[in-house]
Amino acid sequence: MIKVGVIGFGYWGPNLVRNFATSDRCKMVAVADLDSKRLAAAERSYPGIRTTTNPADLFAAADIDAVAISTPVQYHFDLALAALQAGKHVLVEKPMAASAADCRRLIDEAAKRKLTLMVDHTFIYTPAVQKMRDLVQTGELGEIYYYDSVRVNLGLFQHDVNVLWDLAVHDLSIIEYVLGKVPVAVSATGISHVPGAPENIAYLTMFFEDSTIAHVNVNWLAPVKVRQTLISGSKKMVVFNELEPSEKIKVYDKGIVLNDDQEQINKLIAGYRTGDMWAPQLAGTEALAAEVRHFADCIETGTAPLTDGEMGYNVVKVLEAASKSLAQRGASVAVER
Amino acid sequence: MIKVGVIGFGYWGPNLVRNFATSDRCKMVAVADLDSKRLAAAERSYPGIRTTTNPADLFAAADIDAVAISTPVQYHFDLALAALQAGKHVLVEKPMAASAADCRRLIDEAAKRKLTLMVDHTFIYTPAVQKMRDLVQTGELGEIYYYDSVRVNLGLFQHDVNVLWDLAVHDLSIIEYVLGKVPVAVSATGISHVPGAPENIAYLTMFFEDSTIAHVNVNWLAPVKVRQTLISGSKKMVVFNELEPSEKIKVYDKGIVLNDDQEQINKLIAGYRTGDMWAPQLAGTEALAAEVRHFADCIETGTAPLTDGEMGYNVVKVLEAASKSLAQRGASVAVER
Amino acid sequence: MIKVGVIGFGYWGPNLVRNFATSDRCKMVAVADLDSKRLAAAERSYPGIRTTTNPADLFAAADIDAVAISTPVQYHFDLALAALQAGKHVLVEKPMAASAADCRRLIDEAAKRKLTLMVDHTFIYTPAVQKMRDLVQTGELGEIYYYDSVRVNLGLFQHDVNVLWDLAVHDLSIIEYVLGKVPVAVSATGISHVPGAPENIAYLTMFFEDSTIAHVNVNWLAPVKVRQTLISGSKKMVVFNELEPSEKIKVYDKGIVLNDDQEQINKLIAGYRTGDMWAPQLAGTEALAAEVRHFADCIETGTAPLTDGEMGYNVVKVLEAASKSLAQRGASVAVER
Amino acid sequence: MIKVGVIGFGYWGPNLVRNFATSDRCKMVAVADLDSKRLAAAERSYPGIRTTTNPADLFAAADIDAVAISTPVQYHFDLALAALQAGKHVLVEKPMAASAADCRRLIDEAAKRKLTLMVDHTFIYTPAVQKMRDLVQTGELGEIYYYDSVRVNLGLFQHDVNVLWDLAVHDLSIIEYVLGKVPVAVSATGISHVPGAPENIAYLTMFFEDSTIAHVNVNWLAPVKVRQTLISGSKKMVVFNELEPSEKIKVYDKGIVLNDDQEQINKLIAGYRTGDMWAPQLAGTEALAAEVRHFADCIETGTAPLTDGEMGYNVVKVLEAASKSLAQRGASVAVER
Repeated sequence: MIKVGVIGFGYWGPNLVRNFATSDRCKMVAVADLDSKRLAAAERSYPGIRTTTNPADLFAAADIDAVAISTPVQYHFDLALAALQAGKHVLVEKPMAASAADCRRLIDEAAKRKLTLMVDHTFIYTPAVQKMRDLVQTGELGEIYYYDSVRVNLGLFQHDVNVLWDLAVHDLSIIEYVLGKVPVAVSATGISHVPGAPENIAYLTMFFEDSTIAHVNVNWLAPVKVRQTLISGSKKMVVFNELEPSEKIKVYDKGIVLNDDQEQINKLIAGYRTGDMWAPQLAGTEALAAEVRHFADCIETGTAPLTDGEMGYNVVKVLEAASKSLAQRGASVAVER
Repeated sequence: MIKVGVIGFGYWGPNLVRNFATSDRCKMVAVADLDSKRLAAAERSYPGIRTTTNPADLFAAADIDAVAISTPVQYHFDLALAALQAGKHVLVEKPMAASAADCRRLIDEAAKRKLTLMVDHTFIYTPAVQKMRDLVQTGELGEIYYYDSVRVNLGLFQHDVNVLWDLAVHDLSIIEYVLGKVPVAVSATGISHVPGAPENIAYLTMFFEDSTIAHVNVNWLAPVKVRQTLISGSKKMVVFNELEPSEKIKVYDKGIVLNDDQEQINKLIAGYRTGDMWAPQLAGTEALAAEVRHFADCIETGTAPLTDGEMGYNVVKVLEAASKSLAQRGASVAVER
Repeated sequence: MIKVGVIGFGYWGPNLVRNFATSDRCKMVAVADLDSKRLAAAERSYPGIRTTTNPADLFAAADIDAVAISTPVQYHFDLALAALQAGKHVLVEKPMAASAADCRRLIDEAAKRKLTLMVDHTFIYTPAVQKMRDLVQTGELGEIYYYDSVRVNLGLFQHDVNVLWDLAVHDLSIIEYVLGKVPVAVSATGISHVPGAPENIAYLTMFFEDSTIAHVNVNWLAPVKVRQTLISGSKKMVVFNELEPSEKIKVYDKGIVLNDDQEQINKLIAGYRTGDMWAPQLAGTEALAAEVRHFADCIETGTAPLTDGEMGYNVVKVLEAASKSLAQRGASVAVER
Repeated sequence: MIKVGVIGFGYWGPNLVRNFATSDRCKMVAVADLDSKRLAAAERSYPGIRTTTNPADLFAAADIDAVAISTPVQYHFDLALAALQAGKHVLVEKPMAASAADCRRLIDEAAKRKLTLMVDHTFIYTPAVQKMRDLVQTGELGEIYYYDSVRVNLGLFQHDVNVLWDLAVHDLSIIEYVLGKVPVAVSATGISHVPGAPENIAYLTMFFEDSTIAHVNVNWLAPVKVRQTLISGSKKMVVFNELEPSEKIKVYDKGIVLNDDQEQINKLIAGYRTGDMWAPQLAGTEALAAEVRHFADCIETGTAPLTDGEMGYNVVKVLEAASKSLAQRGASVAVER
């Protein structure tokens, strides 16, 4: 049993605590949060766990093996470093840290101490993303042409990071995991509609070494929530609609018409989709439950997590390049090697 | 009765011919096309009209008042210029011409001769776009924050122009008409997946003098056809889904949460939309029928069309800037004044 | 070339005329309608065809081989009988006639004269219904459990027949064609909300010799148009949504849980659908064009149409039984053998 | 604080326990279930509550004020009666009991002892049903023409009751609450596809004293889960789609065309909906939380619950009449007064 402490009991922390508490591989030991009202709530729901307003109490506790950090991104580095230095395994919220340099520092620290360092890119553990990876990696989609994602939210503005760091972060991990490659250059545009606040709308294009292109549309100010991803290959295409209750993944046989046959052209103009469509049934597993199991496995076996520090580092490098491009209204910026 | 000749009887030409033929304001006189099989089809459907493989026959015909040009864009300028020089009013397919300079030349020629020059930006005449213009221009949406459009097609590749010139062209006219302003700079990215062919996928961000931002996602290689536009203002937001049979326009009351109230935040995170929604019923009018009537009105009264040469020119200027930016992987390019 | 006259140029007649006119197997010769304004419209659209306010002119015309009858149902019998007696092949709108006895009479007359008698159950010629028949007849769905259809319209009230005769008529032909069997008893309920007018809402259950059950929900007073049919078998289930532009037919792998396994039960309760789903691409053919071709084939070869008089007769027998049951608030009424 | 014991910890019981546990008006004291594994699960989730395999322990407990019964329907009567006789307030799952006579007996017992007797018709406490009641009771919909509901599930077969008792029960309570009236006669049809098992598909028409008609389509063997209700009035119509995440309630302005105006008729035939549509935002409250609060209120003030014994009794009377009609293939059966 991995004995776990969680830092941060705001929006996401309670989900972590619940999954650690119900996992048969872990034991929830303690929760830290600056807000004592939140700690009181944690105590009501989980009688018997310890609470503290001081995260250092968790690092010092001999009965804690691993720490999960679910705080604003600006605190990730200090807390994760202190945890590693105290010999704890770490699961840290995404984005992993506020800079790529900080990410690298954490990776090195964990390596030196032979501790598990995992980033909470939860999407990687969903049945839908697993299915997309299968479809791409088995070659069923053919050569990958593009990844196109729309991820827009309902008017919830963050004040510490811009919308790319809040929402595009999901796609960056999915792209690395599903396509198995990372961008070499980016172009980003966006704007803030609240004076002095970070960008609340942004568009990010990513270029790769080959002719794959990726694009992410993120927005905190949409009338309807949208979570839709297209992956198109030379053989088939996938539509992933996270909010669709019954058909999250649809796979389409593809058709391209390059010739001048007017009848074929008219058919494509008049049509609404191409080829047969197939919507595989997906397991109903909660991603976070799978992730918690995987975290326990990695700690016990010493293997690298799917969402290890390297993935967290790659994601932050792209976000840094994107922020630079954003400041130059879309000028292409190389992603640091 | 405006007596009309149509040049080009491929995909769109037959729609023009049908609408001129059934209009009580116009009379279809002649059709020109290089392909005699198409001319035979035109004769079968419209017994009594003249046909010719030589467009010059239409310019020379004394019984033709106006010419509609529905050919590939590379021929627009020469044909429109010749028509104007022959004293004919002109309706030309969009984009108006292959360069802004050509557009300007046509505008001048029409002005000199006091002829009507109209560009077939059909969307402007749809009840949905009319409704969006009303919502914006009456201030019902408040200050406009962004325009965001996805316009993707099913595998139909053009070889003469890239996907921006084929699909983004619609949004450029809608933006000018609905928002009442034109972009000052653009950033565009995209790629071609067929060696030697024009870009089949592209992303275009447009900046304005104020803090409005616009973005268009265009793609010839999608598994499903999408035609969706969001316009967000400080008071309300509109979703325009052209393919939705019964609720093309949805208007949402808006909500933004800038504070730290955790309960409000959780509600927004868990929610799927904001505020009440209202879907006004739209008239079922065919846009092209309204456009043909408007063309006849403009010719008879000498007033400028909604989609006049200036709009066509503005649209092409943005397309030229976008093509430059595309070649530089998103670098910001100013739109010529 | 089959030379055709059409009687009735109201709502559906123009579709018949258009399809006969564009078919390379038929030639449109003449149109009859009581309303001379409609005849003028027919002449405008089809220069060269003859028009008349007297249907008898069509029966008397030596240059007419076949007559299509698209009038209110009360006139079907007299017109079809006169046409047959004049030696014309007949295509008659559905329902075939106002009584089963009249249908039988027409069948006998056509048989005696070796003329083709076809009923315009257009749905039978749609790619979607053809696909459903394939799925059922090849056994892919397994033993058929039920057919369940919702067919509701927007406030368009007929005054000559009730809603069963107007809308359920489609399902009755689809059931016979797709399932390959006819009901033995019916129970129908419904009501009229306009005093003195026929029922505008009705529910029809049909029983068969085996344990298949069918139900049709028809309604002239719905806020949204619905056209959805479910066919469930012991192996798979089909959903046919006529109004869905891109996925008219969806085939679902099925799951039933008969045991007491709580986890399985919870999964079904929480789920939104069962098994994999597959949406085959359907041809974009216009049903009426296929039907017109089939009519010409049947006339030329003397074979019985898919939608022959017997199908028309079976449909009307069920409608008669349903009307009797409706008057008794659902009491079971046997369908005449 | 109302001290509560819950009998039955299968599918629904845990929801009751969770809502009693988190309510600030109630205190969860004890859970009874025949299955000790379920009791162990209850103890893990709610450390400190008592558990027992004998419901009588709850009736005998001095520290229990109220008992909630969430068992198969066949046990409702005996358990509820014993609870009332022990002086406990009762919340009983729907349907209230296996016969109307049993329901009446429970009502009398509760009245005699001045105890609160409430039936868990949870839907009544949803924001959507509350909104529909408002729309009907304020006259906004006008005179009510029909209630039409489809409520179909994914292959989960019950063995103790037929599908009407399992699913139509929801609509019967909604009809009484929203329309404010009860049916006077019913016609029901249905069939069982599993030999010896209760009907798994059924259709129920309900007649009222006026010209309102109601129909419920219930089915345990559907490929997709559907929960859709239409209520149509002389002025407006409502569509309630429980599974739609963002627009559960849509209100449509209505249109009927009774005249012969061909243009109007064509518009309705071609259209997909009538009038403007309005989708009011609904509160995100969990119905069961509101219900638990209401239960506590009723106990404390002695007022009758919205879903009191009388509603439970009326619902069971209709179910009894429906079962009789079902056995006679739809013959009309009067609902007992």
